[in-house]
Amino acid sequence: MVDIERANQEAVQRFLNSQPVLVGIGKALDVIPGMTPKTILHAGPPVTWDRMSGPLKGAIIGALIYEGLAQDENQAIELASSGEIIFDSCHHHNAVGPMAGVTSPSMPVFIVENKTYGNKAYCNLNEGLGKALRFGAYGEDVIKRLKWMEEVLGPALKEALSIVGEIDVKNLQVQALMMGDECHNRNRAGTSLFLRQIAPGLVKSSLPKEDVAKVFEFINGNDHFFLNLSMAACKATADSAKGIKGSTMVYTMARNGTDFGIRVSGLGDKWFTAPAEKIRGLYFPGFGPEDANPDIGDSVISETIGIGGFAMAAAPAIVQFVGGTVKDAINYTQSMYEITLTENNAYRIPYLDFKGTPTGIDIRKVIETGILPIINTGIAHKKPGIGQVGAGLVNPPMKCFEDALIAFAEEYNIE
Amino acid sequence: MVDIERANQEAVQRFLNSQPVLVGIGKALDVIPGMTPKTILHAGPPVTWDRMSGPLKGAIIGALIYEGLAQDENQAIELASSGEIIFDSCHHHNAVGPMAGVTSPSMPVFIVENKTYGNKAYCNLNEGLGKALRFGAYGEDVIKRLKWMEEVLGPALKEALSIVGEIDVKNLQVQALMMGDECHNRNRAGTSLFLRQIAPGLVKSSLPKEDVAKVFEFINGNDHFFLNLSMAACKATADSAKGIKGSTMVYTMARNGTDFGIRVSGLGDKWFTAPAEKIRGLYFPGFGPEDANPDIGDSVISETIGIGGFAMAAAPAIVQFVGGTVKDAINYTQSMYEITLTENNAYRIPYLDFKGTPTGIDIRKVIETGILPIINTGIAHKKPGIGQVGAGLVNPPMKCFEDALIAFAEEYNIE
Repeated sequence: MVDIERANQEAVQRFLNSQPVLVGIGKALDVIPGMTPKTILHAGPPVTWDRMSGPLKGAIIGALIYEGLAQDENQAIELASSGEIIFDSCHHHNAVGPMAGVTSPSMPVFIVENKTYGNKAYCNLNEGLGKALRFGAYGEDVIKRLKWMEEVLGPALKEALSIVGEIDVKNLQVQALMMGDECHNRNRAGTSLFLRQIAPGLVKSSLPKEDVAKVFEFINGNDHFFLNLSMAACKATADSAKGIKGSTMVYTMARNGTDFGIRVSGLGDKWFTAPAEKIRGLYFPGFGPEDANPDIGDSVISETIGIGGFAMAAAPAIVQFVGGTVKDAINYTQSMYEITLTENNAYRIPYLDFKGTPTGIDIRKVIETGILPIINTGIAHKKPGIGQVGAGLVNPPMKCFEDALIAFAEEYNIE
Repeated sequence: MVDIERANQEAVQRFLNSQPVLVGIGKALDVIPGMTPKTILHAGPPVTWDRMSGPLKGAIIGALIYEGLAQDENQAIELASSGEIIFDSCHHHNAVGPMAGVTSPSMPVFIVENKTYGNKAYCNLNEGLGKALRFGAYGEDVIKRLKWMEEVLGPALKEALSIVGEIDVKNLQVQALMMGDECHNRNRAGTSLFLRQIAPGLVKSSLPKEDVAKVFEFINGNDHFFLNLSMAACKATADSAKGIKGSTMVYTMARNGTDFGIRVSGLGDKWFTAPAEKIRGLYFPGFGPEDANPDIGDSVISETIGIGGFAMAAAPAIVQFVGGTVKDAINYTQSMYEITLTENNAYRIPYLDFKGTPTGIDIRKVIETGILPIINTGIAHKKPGIGQVGAGLVNPPMKCFEDALIAFAEEYNIE
């Protein structure tokens, strides 16, 4: 008989022991395992072109133009439908990507190593809010910015990091939680602390100072810059708990805009998917719920390891961005203790007397209590080419957890 | 009959309307009104050399050596006792200084203008924690750092500011309160946000990049860097409410390490002083209450205008630095509403549902309720030459408020 409690303790202990550190910045093609010149990675569980949502299609159109594989939208759609491009889940390549999560071969990516377990994780760099590839926009400005990120930002950060040395991302997350971030939809502190740490390296780098100044202006102009680095750290943490025999702990949650998928430690690589839910949120002026795509993105890797929506009590000011009251934010965090295995030993919430965040979702507890994980998230327009229209709160479909529990019972012969 | 309520509304409205903006960085001798080559400004109400506390004497010894007016400690003491040096309160020169607050002619200072009322305020730059002039230390390292601040840091910030343009300090304070600072003893967010804003200017400046990198490293290494800029902003705000006929609102609180002094809007320049109190605090390893000097410094200008100790509910993590529990921090803020005139319209506390901070101390309410303003503060060693030994909480002496109320009754013929 499998000892589930013991397996879960081992699994969640791996989350707690993880030490994700930024060790480099590289080109996706060079550093992401299994990447090819014609591979496009995307957020969430695997999905075929014909089933992809508008924003994911939009981001892929943009990526094909950015890579020079297509000249325009029509060519890009033709190529994407041709079968010539390999689409795959970021998660199958130790990677994550926010919203559409589209990661193409030329993009610069953060390389985060989990120093405790030796595994690595990757995430591309954040473009800013509004019209951005990850929300499905692919206008000229979007492509131009991606080129600048490839040619200036990526190399600048790479050289700066080599000067200042590896950066302990978990430490930045821990500090950011003391400063009103929850490290998913509020990243102002994390972005500030990252910039402070890498700044001397940027200044000492060999880049022309106009470029260095632009890098500072770009990061200063985007309070979400830290998100993608934080996500890579969460992914490096999450993957360390994969494949613990007998564990019912979730180690992946992800959405591709069509499906929500979870993976469970004791069930290896298998995805449990169901249609992605609608988001309850605040919309930018001129947009409303009828414009919204269902839930999309890998950024829910934050909640998977105990921050983001699970740490909203640390970030009261986030309600101005995702809706609700401060009391709601505290209640969301409190309710997550019902479905998790432990309190985090590093991620802490000042207003709950420095209590550790609820960490390690147990699919059994989700089914028993009927409480679903709380996720805060950006909202993409449902049509390709438009971009972000708001931000809000969402849950995974219960079916993912139900199917996973049935599969777990079968796998381990539990009646 | 004077209309006290109306006068107080006018006084506190001036606090609320104030828009303190960083407009320049200059040399104290050049920019502070009434500064001379032989003037040394200090924190708190005026005090003569013979009555000065250890840390204030230590800081003055250091300043005289730094200015080249003395070669060593003995010469400095001789000069300080000779009557040749003009000692005066920072507050008499539109200035403030943390702890000893010693400001000498060659020091670079922030120049903050209150855009609403046109008045200016000044504060020197923060040296960091531990062995620092403002805590009474004057070793070789302290003097060397002051020289570097004069020769590199000040000019670098001055040029950078001229490139990025004026910086709205109130806006930085408002954001910092959303990020777990209370802008007195926790300034990690404020320091980060200031650095983000000035960074492109530093990079574009004409300084050698080694110097620019050192400036980034210095500010990144000192989470209190923002304090002195914030204090100048508070002083610019506070002074705008001076001299409102009939107002019982406090517009200055300050300590020189011997005396605590307050000034009241309707009573003009007059100080009401009493012996400074002992601080209840956390000590650095190797130090204890027997080492502590009584309360010292102008940083209580923060509490005077509604932040610092009055905003501790915004900064739960500060209890790790000054002692107490998170609940205490919230209670301190809550109790300050009892002795203040209004809720701030800009400084807000996320955890109290974005309620404005308690703003504008009314001496009548202090006497009626018996509740004294709460101040959080650093602790200096009582002997010259040692430096900071801890941080904690303190109140002003009740006598300041009692004497002020008696004087108010006399001034306005109230029985």
